[in-house]
Amino acid sequence: MAQRKIDELLQDDIGFGDLTSEILDPNVKIKAVVVAKGEGIVAGTEEASYAFSRLGARVTVRKHDGEKVKPGDILMEVEGGAREILAAERTALNLLMWMSGTATATAQMLEKAREVNPKIVLACTRKSPLPIFDKKAVEVGGGDPHRFRLDDCLLLKSNHLKLLGGVRMALQKIRKSFTKKVEVEVGTAEEALEAAMYGADIVMLDNVPVEEVRRTVELLEQKGLRNKVLVEVSGGINPSNVQEYARAGPDVLSSSYMTMHAPALDLSLEIL
Amino acid sequence: MAQRKIDELLQDDIGFGDLTSEILDPNVKIKAVVVAKGEGIVAGTEEASYAFSRLGARVTVRKHDGEKVKPGDILMEVEGGAREILAAERTALNLLMWMSGTATATAQMLEKAREVNPKIVLACTRKSPLPIFDKKAVEVGGGDPHRFRLDDCLLLKSNHLKLLGGVRMALQKIRKSFTKKVEVEVGTAEEALEAAMYGADIVMLDNVPVEEVRRTVELLEQKGLRNKVLVEVSGGINPSNVQEYARAGPDVLSSSYMTMHAPALDLSLEIL
Amino acid sequence: MAQRKIDELLQDDIGFGDLTSEILDPNVKIKAVVVAKGEGIVAGTEEASYAFSRLGARVTVRKHDGEKVKPGDILMEVEGGAREILAAERTALNLLMWMSGTATATAQMLEKAREVNPKIVLACTRKSPLPIFDKKAVEVGGGDPHRFRLDDCLLLKSNHLKLLGGVRMALQKIRKSFTKKVEVEVGTAEEALEAAMYGADIVMLDNVPVEEVRRTVELLEQKGLRNKVLVEVSGGINPSNVQEYARAGPDVLSSSYMTMHAPALDLSLEIL
Amino acid sequence: MAQRKIDELLQDDIGFGDLTSEILDPNVKIKAVVVAKGEGIVAGTEEASYAFSRLGARVTVRKHDGEKVKPGDILMEVEGGAREILAAERTALNLLMWMSGTATATAQMLEKAREVNPKIVLACTRKSPLPIFDKKAVEVGGGDPHRFRLDDCLLLKSNHLKLLGGVRMALQKIRKSFTKKVEVEVGTAEEALEAAMYGADIVMLDNVPVEEVRRTVELLEQKGLRNKVLVEVSGGINPSNVQEYARAGPDVLSSSYMTMHAPALDLSLEIL
Amino acid sequence: MAQRKIDELLQDDIGFGDLTSEILDPNVKIKAVVVAKGEGIVAGTEEASYAFSRLGARVTVRKHDGEKVKPGDILMEVEGGAREILAAERTALNLLMWMSGTATATAQMLEKAREVNPKIVLACTRKSPLPIFDKKAVEVGGGDPHRFRLDDCLLLKSNHLKLLGGVRMALQKIRKSFTKKVEVEVGTAEEALEAAMYGADIVMLDNVPVEEVRRTVELLEQKGLRNKVLVEVSGGINPSNVQEYARAGPDVLSSSYMTMHAPALDLSLEIL
Amino acid sequence: MAQRKIDELLQDDIGFGDLTSEILDPNVKIKAVVVAKGEGIVAGTEEASYAFSRLGARVTVRKHDGEKVKPGDILMEVEGGAREILAAERTALNLLMWMSGTATATAQMLEKAREVNPKIVLACTRKSPLPIFDKKAVEVGGGDPHRFRLDDCLLLKSNHLKLLGGVRMALQKIRKSFTKKVEVEVGTAEEALEAAMYGADIVMLDNVPVEEVRRTVELLEQKGLRNKVLVEVSGGINPSNVQEYARAGPDVLSSSYMTMHAPALDLSLEIL
Repeated sequence: MAQRKIDELLQDDIGFGDLTSEILDPNVKIKAVVVAKGEGIVAGTEEASYAFSRLGARVTVRKHDGEKVKPGDILMEVEGGAREILAAERTALNLLMWMSGTATATAQMLEKAREVNPKIVLACTRKSPLPIFDKKAVEVGGGDPHRFRLDDCLLLKSNHLKLLGGVRMALQKIRKSFTKKVEVEVGTAEEALEAAMYGADIVMLDNVPVEEVRRTVELLEQKGLRNKVLVEVSGGINPSNVQEYARAGPDVLSSSYMTMHAPALDLSLEIL
Repeated sequence: MAQRKIDELLQDDIGFGDLTSEILDPNVKIKAVVVAKGEGIVAGTEEASYAFSRLGARVTVRKHDGEKVKPGDILMEVEGGAREILAAERTALNLLMWMSGTATATAQMLEKAREVNPKIVLACTRKSPLPIFDKKAVEVGGGDPHRFRLDDCLLLKSNHLKLLGGVRMALQKIRKSFTKKVEVEVGTAEEALEAAMYGADIVMLDNVPVEEVRRTVELLEQKGLRNKVLVEVSGGINPSNVQEYARAGPDVLSSSYMTMHAPALDLSLEIL
Repeated sequence: MAQRKIDELLQDDIGFGDLTSEILDPNVKIKAVVVAKGEGIVAGTEEASYAFSRLGARVTVRKHDGEKVKPGDILMEVEGGAREILAAERTALNLLMWMSGTATATAQMLEKAREVNPKIVLACTRKSPLPIFDKKAVEVGGGDPHRFRLDDCLLLKSNHLKLLGGVRMALQKIRKSFTKKVEVEVGTAEEALEAAMYGADIVMLDNVPVEEVRRTVELLEQKGLRNKVLVEVSGGINPSNVQEYARAGPDVLSSSYMTMHAPALDLSLEIL
Repeated sequence: MAQRKIDELLQDDIGFGDLTSEILDPNVKIKAVVVAKGEGIVAGTEEASYAFSRLGARVTVRKHDGEKVKPGDILMEVEGGAREILAAERTALNLLMWMSGTATATAQMLEKAREVNPKIVLACTRKSPLPIFDKKAVEVGGGDPHRFRLDDCLLLKSNHLKLLGGVRMALQKIRKSFTKKVEVEVGTAEEALEAAMYGADIVMLDNVPVEEVRRTVELLEQKGLRNKVLVEVSGGINPSNVQEYARAGPDVLSSSYMTMHAPALDLSLEIL
Repeated sequence: MAQRKIDELLQDDIGFGDLTSEILDPNVKIKAVVVAKGEGIVAGTEEASYAFSRLGARVTVRKHDGEKVKPGDILMEVEGGAREILAAERTALNLLMWMSGTATATAQMLEKAREVNPKIVLACTRKSPLPIFDKKAVEVGGGDPHRFRLDDCLLLKSNHLKLLGGVRMALQKIRKSFTKKVEVEVGTAEEALEAAMYGADIVMLDNVPVEEVRRTVELLEQKGLRNKVLVEVSGGINPSNVQEYARAGPDVLSSSYMTMHAPALDLSLEIL
Repeated sequence: MAQRKIDELLQDDIGFGDLTSEILDPNVKIKAVVVAKGEGIVAGTEEASYAFSRLGARVTVRKHDGEKVKPGDILMEVEGGAREILAAERTALNLLMWMSGTATATAQMLEKAREVNPKIVLACTRKSPLPIFDKKAVEVGGGDPHRFRLDDCLLLKSNHLKLLGGVRMALQKIRKSFTKKVEVEVGTAEEALEAAMYGADIVMLDNVPVEEVRRTVELLEQKGLRNKVLVEVSGGINPSNVQEYARAGPDVLSSSYMTMHAPALDLSLEIL
């Protein structure tokens, strides 16, 4: 049901109508292709197809979500009214460019991380302008979407802990739901241990040096709690330090790099 | 009327409710501050204030749109229910981080460009995930928002020209509206000249080398048409080449760098 | 994307369902025609077709937007469920009646005006109950839609000038966007001159006698500024005085007559 | 709950923002008045007040719905930010102008009709671009709103009768709801009689000459059914023939004149 | 136009996507049936079909609205993508289960009531969580939908009477619309008589014993007003007392039992 | 953000306006109370307050969510315009009645279940007409909301298992997200064991006899997996059998009784 969001993107971009394309004869039909001008992993083909089809065009996808492309590759063919295809162009290509950029960055960072830690998970965050598209793109790239909203897992952050009197008190007060996991943000190995002892399913080390990650993993192992909790690390993870953090042994790295700073995949719409 | 969009961002993020903050006593009131962790120009204060106030908090803005901040500066103070402030946190900070990042990048690129071309205009594009916020942030940074939608100026792009038989034919066929300008995308100085001769208000050189920009400006001057059209340059403009393009003498540089790749301003919400 | 507005019109009119048509057998299919009972220019065929098709009917347009009809002419044929066609009838015919009425009035006023001033433009205003349909109908009738919204050109009205210290001061203060034109409302030839001198693209003489229009055109010519600005006249323009104003030599006449007072084209839906 | 519609009108008119008013200092507060430039009955004060207040202005209504105004009278005072008042101006004044025009026309036609038929009711139709405002304006003018939607009374029109085998058959087949009245469109006195005999609550003579109205009233009286049904007349009723139709003795005259062709009340916003 | 509500139900249930069904191969097509596990009258087939079809499935209805089913009967066949059918399942089945439950309860109560009072009408109320579906289900079961909203008939309740000075005063003050009926809530036979004398179309005896209903019917008959008003009884009517109330001779029984407490029809979706 | 849903309920109920309350003088202010006519636990006070306040009334809550009431107790006081309070009455009281009914039923079933199994959890399902209100009411009554949507935990139901080749295959194929739990619907103790062995966090025994629940608990204990999975039981759980199922030793009972069949709490609005 991301369709309503795409309808809104189209409507916000088109307004009273595409003044420029209105010059074109309403009966002119064209065939166009979306061509890669860069290299990466494709994501957003369903979304872009929907945007074109909403204005009456027929789309044939040539490269599906998850496939690799290089410059010159055709991602999709579009047939329909010239006016309509050009009116949908920006919205459709924006979705495809952003989502492919995010998927590509996710796959690249994940690959790096797994070279040194083969089971590690790479997750995104809620720092995401268009979450319904961004989260999906991360999944296409092999990443984990993390929480979708404030309602789908309990994440006690430092502000909650401050208000509730620390990790232990907070974990004793929370109203659990049996279908939801409980995660706690911690700053040291000792806090992580406390969280694990009082029932957290996941501990998130936020903005800590690599060394603290390593110390946390070791402390949890010593105390026999390593299998009780997942260890997540967040804060400033990016392509340049992802391997270093991965090597320290956590289960999950989460980063807003993929949804906030990944370069979009360069694309163009070419009329045949 | 960006309020409806902010309501939607809040609603999409909160869903059935902020499970974590529901542990907090509904009567606990807190005072918190939004603190800069990086350096930049602030934008989005009205938007972030609205997001907090929508959940009942009172906001006092300490740094208004357009002001500079450095690490440790307080942007705004927020007072209200602990539950509500934490539920709005992510949405409010996302808006402030993105918009400030965009405003900062705009101001920096513009400053560089004006060192060598004091009257140049820096504009953004429609490659923008949340246009109503992105365009405003560009304006806060001193930039020009360019077209808001497909309905507020005629922009004949290469695909239109292809379908209409070239610059001259296209300019003769368009249905003008006396309140709207006409812009034409061109690839060479000669096409720019043709556009100027047939009534374009703006020519946009897309994806051309610096040298072609210079040649265009000179050709238009030779033919006495330099004052008839604005010369815009687009395609791959970024902080590293902005000065070089500005020096070639165009009126406007347009770039999606500010709305697509500018680093967000790092911020945090700290409970006092 | 006017579809959402038509969906809303249908929904507001139908509510819980068309009580009357529910008597009809759900399997009864009918063929009906929309017949002109008056004379005029057709507009709104896409909108009416969409309204019928939204309830499952198939429409064949016999008279397209811009064509003339006289009493007895068939505008469209509609086939589908009797219940559905009768439920959509009022919404579909309202759109067709209003838009055709507006297009007809536009064409008639424009014809009169062009008899005496062959290049004159006739524009509508924002005094329009359903702008997305009204503006389009004006275009079908050969008119200019003028500003769509407060965001697509700068129009300094007398209230702005009062607050900003007059024409010159206002024009020096405005924040321009290179894609948007600047228009100034003036009350005399001298003010028009001032606006032209300080960079206005358009001057709008509001509620002035014909003589003042003539004087403005002459003054601008004397000062060599006639080609620098478009002269628009507004305020009480209607079929009875349109020719007189046109003869005075402005570039544009704008009027709310077409969208506010034009008689609707009389139509009826007849089951075959 | 007309508020959502007014929000939508504002949003459609403002878009990305009121470019012109953005020049004004955001801190400038003004006081302005809405002044009548014509004569009529006021309607729409709540709606216009809401539009101004939505952008933060405070409104004091000086002439309430139903009061008479003459040129120079002040309808309301508005205080608040200059930017915001000017951004809401068009939407607020449009509502006030249209609704007052409709109320005025309703009151005038009703007065004429009641001179000759003191108990007659004047109703509007569903030929109305903005029903939630138009229907209310008719009520302010003393008129009857008629059906709001297809779901609030059964109205068998000629197309229904054609499909159902005539008045009697249709009345026998309808699925009644005990809270809803049943109305039948008829073309002759005899059909009206048939409708009355088979249980119609209201008969609507559509597009008939005055003489047929008179004949219907008499026939129903002769048959002792005059008190069983309300007689409504519709089709081309306007200020010039309203008295003639009223004199023929029906209970209700319905007309789309008030919502489709009534002149708007001329108003202006003046900054003090 | 209940489609928008169904879209909303789907969207609220699906959110970011059906995590579970995403495991399934996107190309797997299935055929499934909706099977009754209980006995009752079917309602909601159009609504459930729409929900499935919105996600791309094709539906063949085997038991239409109003038909009886027993355990094992197939209501509809659904063909399409496995992912999509499972994502729509809950929403589609919820609609079908609730609406069938309501229709069944309506038919059963009505049958009981008509055994002792063959012309009696059974109506629902506005105590209904999803009125557009609930009201329709009542109609499928042979019941009357009563008022749809506060705008489709005047119903003077005890709070109105209190504020207006009693039945007579209230009936003299109301602003009637000729297409709308007037109903008055009363507590005794004498009040019912007063309402009938002053023009009420319907009297509603609310929360009264059976004996008072009988007394009201008799009093109205004695006074020759029984044919002037419909007598409705409401308040605590349910399957156990419906016959007793019906026997007392009113025209209408209204109850929230069918829309608030009727057991849903048990159904399951079985993949073939 | 349930506010948008309440706005929609109000708008759907009010339509063009509350015809009846429009008779009241717009200046009449009243004070009213919401009084319990039955016994139960209150829920929905914030929702009802919002509904009244949306039309301008001020509400003072006397009994908060979770408190017990008996006949005659005052839940809230409402002050404001008579018209507005009566227009909001039905929507506000519906929310309060339903949510209190659901909270009451939840508390009662839970109490019964905990008499025999003190740590048992009682959860609702997605068979819920207005989930955002129903889920909250269940929480007020001490219950667990279970999944909010298809996106907040993976629940492999029998249809998924059928398509994926059984429990083990399904659990090996699923794409996990580290923040989401995995639940599997099973029909026997042996299937539950298989699910536990292959990593399910929760097993749901659906529509099984009490004996099978007991057998499952015992088998999991024998195999040392009782602490690895939560055992949930669903299908036909209601007040009459809840204790029997609880006694068999599962962790969670889930039931649609509370959101589908719980009697609403009887309430009335009384004007003082």
